[in-house]
Amino acid sequence: MPELRKDPISRRWVIIATERAARPTDFKHEAIEVNDLDRCPFCEGREGRTPPEIYAVRASGTAPNTPGWTVRVVSNKFPALRIEGSTDRSRLGIFTRMDGVGAHEVIVETTDHHTHLGLLPVDHVAHVIRAYLQRYRDLRGDTRFEYVLLFRNHGRTAGASLSHPHSQLIALPVAPKRVAEELDAAERFFGRHGECIYCALLEQEQASGARIVFGNEQFVALEPYASRFPFETWILPRTHEPDFGALRSDDETPLAEALRETLYRLHACLDNPPYNFIIHTFPYRGESRHAYHWHIEVMPRLTQVAGFEWGSGFYINPVVPEEAARYLREVPAPMPVGPVTAGRTHGEVGD
Amino acid sequence: MPELRKDPISRRWVIIATERAARPTDFKHEAIEVNDLDRCPFCEGREGRTPPEIYAVRASGTAPNTPGWTVRVVSNKFPALRIEGSTDRSRLGIFTRMDGVGAHEVIVETTDHHTHLGLLPVDHVAHVIRAYLQRYRDLRGDTRFEYVLLFRNHGRTAGASLSHPHSQLIALPVAPKRVAEELDAAERFFGRHGECIYCALLEQEQASGARIVFGNEQFVALEPYASRFPFETWILPRTHEPDFGALRSDDETPLAEALRETLYRLHACLDNPPYNFIIHTFPYRGESRHAYHWHIEVMPRLTQVAGFEWGSGFYINPVVPEEAARYLREVPAPMPVGPVTAGRTHGEVGD
Repeated sequence: MPELRKDPISRRWVIIATERAARPTDFKHEAIEVNDLDRCPFCEGREGRTPPEIYAVRASGTAPNTPGWTVRVVSNKFPALRIEGSTDRSRLGIFTRMDGVGAHEVIVETTDHHTHLGLLPVDHVAHVIRAYLQRYRDLRGDTRFEYVLLFRNHGRTAGASLSHPHSQLIALPVAPKRVAEELDAAERFFGRHGECIYCALLEQEQASGARIVFGNEQFVALEPYASRFPFETWILPRTHEPDFGALRSDDETPLAEALRETLYRLHACLDNPPYNFIIHTFPYRGESRHAYHWHIEVMPRLTQVAGFEWGSGFYINPVVPEEAARYLREVPAPMPVGPVTAGRTHGEVGD
Repeated sequence: MPELRKDPISRRWVIIATERAARPTDFKHEAIEVNDLDRCPFCEGREGRTPPEIYAVRASGTAPNTPGWTVRVVSNKFPALRIEGSTDRSRLGIFTRMDGVGAHEVIVETTDHHTHLGLLPVDHVAHVIRAYLQRYRDLRGDTRFEYVLLFRNHGRTAGASLSHPHSQLIALPVAPKRVAEELDAAERFFGRHGECIYCALLEQEQASGARIVFGNEQFVALEPYASRFPFETWILPRTHEPDFGALRSDDETPLAEALRETLYRLHACLDNPPYNFIIHTFPYRGESRHAYHWHIEVMPRLTQVAGFEWGSGFYINPVVPEEAARYLREVPAPMPVGPVTAGRTHGEVGD
């Protein structure tokens, strides 16, 4: 019998279609296409092909926009939003508009063209996290911005046009709809129960254990009860904190470990699937901070989203979240990787 | 300069990325794959390969589940929801669940394996509309159902697994999130302005004309001001009516004409693109009927929806809606088609 499950935060119903139950190997997805190494603007030695760098982790003594970096942040060459302009809104009858003001940056995660965030050493992923934090904290100073969206697209199906490992950041002059919905739900729950809904969720999930994928002292990775997508995974800090930007330096490595573990397990279980992940955090200038809890949502892109989903906000998920959690828990630990061999998944030597 | 536009109903912001401005021919999409004719369960003469028919338009004297039909409705052989079961909800701490109760039907639109709703004669499309209406009205009698979602997926990218022209219907025991959001917005607007927001939108759009694609006496097709997708098109009845099921028989042919015109123009302008359309209507047992206005949303699937969109509820649309409307208005009228030659787009003779 299929089951209808309601997400307590978004109030979205999901059909868990148990009779179509699928195993990880049932999902045929595109192989991750690797762009031509010779033309990649994100490879080391081609720093001149991107806009100037905004931030980098570099070997001491190397100059900006030259080789010698480990992680590098640049403006997007084809930005969706522009940094110049005002955030004045104007009304056109029932419609509202403003200039497309914002920032659009690219976080190049490594010099290695062929690897993947789930295959890099934890120390390296911690550098990427620090790059996220530096940009997130820096952009807060621009009072025009309400929100910074940090996200990653892996594979063409997931919207990545370049395969060289990179994340993106978009600073927005308005708070996004999804975040506003989560804040509303969190505020409502807090009003009723005097508690953060994400803290309540974590408590219930840890008591049951059925949907937990991975945990360390600071972070938990789990399959949400009403997962929209097969193998959807959320990473939540155990301690209540609304703001990703408030991450303590002691927590950078545990977060890197949780993110890497999650992405590695998805990679191993689903044969390098396309995915998106998004950091959900409290808006720069929001109120009711007590109710919200920052987290990361990882969504493998294994099924087509069709008219039914668009039309209804319903989702049909053919994988029971408890089964997905079990598959991901059972992934054997990765071989210890050093910085040299990390992520040579295609049997090639990069750089 | 890119522009941010806010949809007055969903309150979703969309980035209209004017500097990436694209013409219809810039969109590379998959060619619509045609399934093997010899194995198609929806072709005439293979009625035994589907569950028994629930409704059909048939030549007089022909028996159910035999050849002689024009439009045929059957249960989905692999339903997402099951007709047996109760709609009792149970709580598991902060989570809510119920049995996956519902109906999942397929409306086979024609015997012709190779055509498309946008290429069929208006009279034929009116038969399809009547099939929608018959099923929509019939399922209202099952008091477990709160909503019936009528939708169509065209092309594999849009989620269609069989290419033989068909629509789908899913009856749900809960009102979908998207519809609830629209109802909330409509109710709020009515409270403030004493008017239906869709009626206000239609009035403003008709006064401007810039985003209108097509109109007849009863229906208007237009590009929404804050279109999420390139060439997104909505079809709205000119007269205020919350309920698709209340369509007067005099309006069946005008609706068929508006739907066919819209789909034909998209087909001609964008070279047979994948698309979804969804009928948005008032829930069977909802309140505040005065505020809502049923309509159809057509979404060509030309761009990838990536992490940015999922994470934020923001969309980046590279086509200015006024430009899209102009392209669609300028599509030359189709050649008049008779029932025999309709839609032989692949130069083959079906059946």
